[in-house]
Amino acid sequence: MGCSYSRITAKDNSLIKFYRKLSGNKKFRLAEQSFVLEGYRLVSDALRNGAKIKSIFITDEAFEKYSDELSVYINGECRMYIISGELGKYMAETECPQGVFAICSMNDEVLLCDFLKDDGTFVILHRLQDPGNAGMILRTADALGISGVIFCKSCDVYSPKVVRATMGSLFRVPVAVCNDEDKLFSELERKNIKSDAAVVQGAAEIVGECDYSCTGRAVWIGNEGNGLSEDISDRCGRKITIPMHGNIESLNAAMAAGILMWEMMKGKINGND
Amino acid sequence: MGCSYSRITAKDNSLIKFYRKLSGNKKFRLAEQSFVLEGYRLVSDALRNGAKIKSIFITDEAFEKYSDELSVYINGECRMYIISGELGKYMAETECPQGVFAICSMNDEVLLCDFLKDDGTFVILHRLQDPGNAGMILRTADALGISGVIFCKSCDVYSPKVVRATMGSLFRVPVAVCNDEDKLFSELERKNIKSDAAVVQGAAEIVGECDYSCTGRAVWIGNEGNGLSEDISDRCGRKITIPMHGNIESLNAAMAAGILMWEMMKGKINGND
Repeated sequence: MGCSYSRITAKDNSLIKFYRKLSGNKKFRLAEQSFVLEGYRLVSDALRNGAKIKSIFITDEAFEKYSDELSVYINGECRMYIISGELGKYMAETECPQGVFAICSMNDEVLLCDFLKDDGTFVILHRLQDPGNAGMILRTADALGISGVIFCKSCDVYSPKVVRATMGSLFRVPVAVCNDEDKLFSELERKNIKSDAAVVQGAAEIVGECDYSCTGRAVWIGNEGNGLSEDISDRCGRKITIPMHGNIESLNAAMAAGILMWEMMKGKINGND
Repeated sequence: MGCSYSRITAKDNSLIKFYRKLSGNKKFRLAEQSFVLEGYRLVSDALRNGAKIKSIFITDEAFEKYSDELSVYINGECRMYIISGELGKYMAETECPQGVFAICSMNDEVLLCDFLKDDGTFVILHRLQDPGNAGMILRTADALGISGVIFCKSCDVYSPKVVRATMGSLFRVPVAVCNDEDKLFSELERKNIKSDAAVVQGAAEIVGECDYSCTGRAVWIGNEGNGLSEDISDRCGRKITIPMHGNIESLNAAMAAGILMWEMMKGKINGND
């Protein structure tokens, strides 16, 4: 389609340097409002879901295999660069690189007041650190139809590890970053969205017995090791908990978030809301 | 306590060779009815839960750090070997080894008829392949109080990857291996344990709406890519499904199993059964 090709051979090519800096540096990603993708599946998912891809890097070998399929989605905004297999290995973060890489623009920042729909169901990740957990939560949010996921003082949603762990769900689930809890609470209140604090101990309503009939709701999920901090859980309208039968440490943060999302969404997915 | 120490320095020591062969070879693990553990947390979890540990290998550095805590649980059956840091690196599978390793005996095989209690709630993993998923399912089963998990033609529960991913839950959740579906179905029927097939498509009851009031129940979870095979799901009393709002591929097998376990167990955990 409208895609032009050039060849890059040198490791010190400025675009390769740009890619590697985006891959490793969170501040640089934020400044450039861009992040990197690795792997055929992820790049094609991004293209299919209308993500703003600026550059694709593809090894000769991967070009033969994937270029037909990729070119269906590629538009005039994107340049494709052919690279050697060796350069592919140099750029790769995974052990078995597929030879497909891309630089993608972040979506234009959406104002929190527009992101938070008053009848939506949201997940807020507060100080969640593990990229695998963040990715798993975004995948599950995608499957269950969560309205949006907000990263608050958590790991960087645009880090290569999180992006990979989302398996493409990053391009389907609305995501916002807001590191100001006061702003977040006041915007939630203004929209009449009720906040639930997911806690592991102390007095709390039992998930599965508590009422989800209000229209707008957000659940706050805390840090893997320490849970949700008390100052946050005290500001939420109610505390909810997953009752544990066995070892309390065995329910990891992503699994707990998945069960909470399921309870929030199941009435809505089944059409019984 | 009753633990004796010796020092191993050579890579070709027979016990080190034995450890490495157990680590890498499923048939050998089965023949020797033994498997390996790596990491302080896992070894101490095993000891605390009464696992039959035959040998512990500990680097000089780790000995200073952990020997006091470990010795509380160690009994006369176990020998402790001091090894060099270099030998520790040679034995390690993880990137940042903690310098603690162990050889553990599998539990005596329990007859399927004794494993399956007629009022229990079971999970059967059929052709599940990913060690991370298997480990996450065992962790969640531990947290939610599942009566037992049965591996049927799935990945090896005693592989180092699965053992690590269970984070110690392997020593708390009853686990059985049965690769004969006919035997499994007939034993389930004899105990009047109802089988649910977890399916991703086709006519099925909606999880969250279906009845869980019978006393004994088992849910069959299938392969990550292909789901549960039709010949298995047709033999189950009912098919159940998690209704999906967004992308169907986004709900991974471990997360789906977690939601199913939660729905089976929540009445029991809350004491409303």
